[in-house]
Amino acid sequence: MSTLREEALKMHREKRGKLGVYSKVTVSDANDLSLAYSPGVAEPCLDIHEDESKVFDYTMKGNLVAVVSNGTAVLGLGNIGPKAAMPVMEGKALLFKSFADVDAFPICLDTMDTDKIVEVVKLLEPTFGGVNLEDIAAPQCFEIEELLRKTCDIPIFHDDQHGTAIVTAAGLINALKLVGKDIEDIRVVINGAGAAGVAIVKLLLHMGVKDVILCDTKGTIYEGRTFGMNLFKEEMARITNKERKQGTLADALLGADVFIGVSAAGSVTKEMVRSMNHDPIIFAMANPVPEIMPEDAKEAGALVVGTGRSDFPNQVNNVLAFPGIFRGALDVQAREINEEMKLAAVYAIAGLISDDEIYADYVIPDPFDRRVAAHVAAAVANAAMETGVSQKNVNVEEVKKRLLTLVEEKQPAFL
Amino acid sequence: MSTLREEALKMHREKRGKLGVYSKVTVSDANDLSLAYSPGVAEPCLDIHEDESKVFDYTMKGNLVAVVSNGTAVLGLGNIGPKAAMPVMEGKALLFKSFADVDAFPICLDTMDTDKIVEVVKLLEPTFGGVNLEDIAAPQCFEIEELLRKTCDIPIFHDDQHGTAIVTAAGLINALKLVGKDIEDIRVVINGAGAAGVAIVKLLLHMGVKDVILCDTKGTIYEGRTFGMNLFKEEMARITNKERKQGTLADALLGADVFIGVSAAGSVTKEMVRSMNHDPIIFAMANPVPEIMPEDAKEAGALVVGTGRSDFPNQVNNVLAFPGIFRGALDVQAREINEEMKLAAVYAIAGLISDDEIYADYVIPDPFDRRVAAHVAAAVANAAMETGVSQKNVNVEEVKKRLLTLVEEKQPAFL
Repeated sequence: MSTLREEALKMHREKRGKLGVYSKVTVSDANDLSLAYSPGVAEPCLDIHEDESKVFDYTMKGNLVAVVSNGTAVLGLGNIGPKAAMPVMEGKALLFKSFADVDAFPICLDTMDTDKIVEVVKLLEPTFGGVNLEDIAAPQCFEIEELLRKTCDIPIFHDDQHGTAIVTAAGLINALKLVGKDIEDIRVVINGAGAAGVAIVKLLLHMGVKDVILCDTKGTIYEGRTFGMNLFKEEMARITNKERKQGTLADALLGADVFIGVSAAGSVTKEMVRSMNHDPIIFAMANPVPEIMPEDAKEAGALVVGTGRSDFPNQVNNVLAFPGIFRGALDVQAREINEEMKLAAVYAIAGLISDDEIYADYVIPDPFDRRVAAHVAAAVANAAMETGVSQKNVNVEEVKKRLLTLVEEKQPAFL
Repeated sequence: MSTLREEALKMHREKRGKLGVYSKVTVSDANDLSLAYSPGVAEPCLDIHEDESKVFDYTMKGNLVAVVSNGTAVLGLGNIGPKAAMPVMEGKALLFKSFADVDAFPICLDTMDTDKIVEVVKLLEPTFGGVNLEDIAAPQCFEIEELLRKTCDIPIFHDDQHGTAIVTAAGLINALKLVGKDIEDIRVVINGAGAAGVAIVKLLLHMGVKDVILCDTKGTIYEGRTFGMNLFKEEMARITNKERKQGTLADALLGADVFIGVSAAGSVTKEMVRSMNHDPIIFAMANPVPEIMPEDAKEAGALVVGTGRSDFPNQVNNVLAFPGIFRGALDVQAREINEEMKLAAVYAIAGLISDDEIYADYVIPDPFDRRVAAHVAAAVANAAMETGVSQKNVNVEEVKKRLLTLVEEKQPAFL
């Protein structure tokens, strides 16, 4: 690990961060200046003043996403604050750029106050075409996203929730094909009631899963539980665990078809996997050490195992989702990212692997499969237009083609 | 004008804005990803968490300036709002990049509330290394700058005030050499009590001018005036016009040595210029039409005439000041831009023209004289170190050399 540490520090120090700003036009004489700045710049200003929608045509707004964090839940590091969160937000921004040609910019805010975060983002709305919330602690993150979605007219997307949920769901769809189970018949146990866990619950229910049990460190969450609850767990209790099962994670897993872990290293044992229904599916995404190591899960009978790690098969990596989702949303000037758009992303990611390509170690595309963002973008743009949240119509094949071409050409501005 | 309009709109539309974000590192395989993002990115995060000052080493913060506006006083267009202000703020950002390799980013805020603007900028402080306030209406801009300077630990600089003041003062120094008058003996009349006018008053007093009269549309501002005053004009009344002269701009100009206009087209006549002391100096910076046209001023006896326009000699262009000022401030991690740093910029700009090069039509360097930013940066960095507001020591010759080299090489990332 010390080599990785040294290499990572060296790279960050030598480049002084990973992001820069470039100008798309050169300013080398008075004529350039008169077009890009005074007096010519007054013309787009006046046009936008007259018709605000033109801000998408004349400025960077239409391709610009704010990566907003207050640093309260950064990676596995916890509440390290907004300055220490900067390297992650810059990293996120460069993934946006590298995978989908989206200009993204870190906005690290020095506050833990929900209302202030909501207010700042709302006040920043004129500048950005979308907002990716990142590494904000639960349950605050739920409230912030909800309030912003109500008040803003640009897409608001908390990636720690939905990105993880979308990629997991895509993997689950393909895994179910492999084991030959119907999504409506399975029982899913999710461990971890934070940002990702809650979003996974909602997305799976939306996709037709009937039987979901959510657990936290205190065991199953059920209606009427009197300890360790909050507003969002109450909501989870209402929509999951219809039989109000009480008990430990081990109790919940008995006979379950799918385990999804967004919790802590080692929380699942071989015995637990053995107690599950036949052909169990395991997504053990605790980082860096999964809830159960893939080899142990497989030894105990798991058919498909996914983790958050790049050194095992079936990596649940959000980079499969967010670049393409925002690319599609921006291309149609979507006012939001709604459930249909998220579902479209799920099926686009899953569909990248055709039925005859699926096997146990390949239910999720490789993070560097550059087709993914293009396919997701097209599907998301299409869903936005179909659900009436787009402000601009596009040809989805063009959306896809443009991104694939950019990837192939690896244009300097793109990478 | 219609050609400029069409060309400007075309350029903005085709490029979809003038700014983009680029990544300094490529992400083409798992190894790249593990350094730039998870898990390697945790290393700089942890280091910054331990020692916050390292955010300058490992992130873009150290080279990043927010160009903050609410669009209430954009160019000559007035209050056109934050969206319509975007093209100007992007333009400003690209000047930062082109002239001084500073990464600058538009932050257009949807509020006219002083406290909210102050709060947002304060909350954004972890992300940025400096803040350039832009096109915010007076008198609000004074209060915002003052409050932010008190609360923030990064440089806050309202360019409409200080940029204009600094370049005007530099031109004045050279003009005075030409006419052989001592700065302590002259009487200066300034027309326009907005952002620039107030800042010019303060800077000139700081430089040793003893006799300044400030006028607004209602005439001279004096202690005890009961009409058209505000807090900031009250302050101006206290520190200028010691004889409490009442009257019109014409009355004030009688016998004056210098006229500085940051007001409106045509407010100065040939007669007024004729009524001034011998060898009058005129800076008529109303845009696009000056207070008096240069040919008229000269005909009436003016020796030196400057304007805000690129098609006349002695253009007072802020681009001579702000790129180098922020370059210098960022290079030493200055906590503020203080009066000494502003004065250093004044003398650096003036000094670019040696005594034997000065003539009536050349008291201010050309905006495209690329030596300027480098010299200003070095002088400002030096002043910051001398006044103890720097957090990092640099060799000022290196600061200058680096920028001159960048200009010569015209590196892609630079332009």
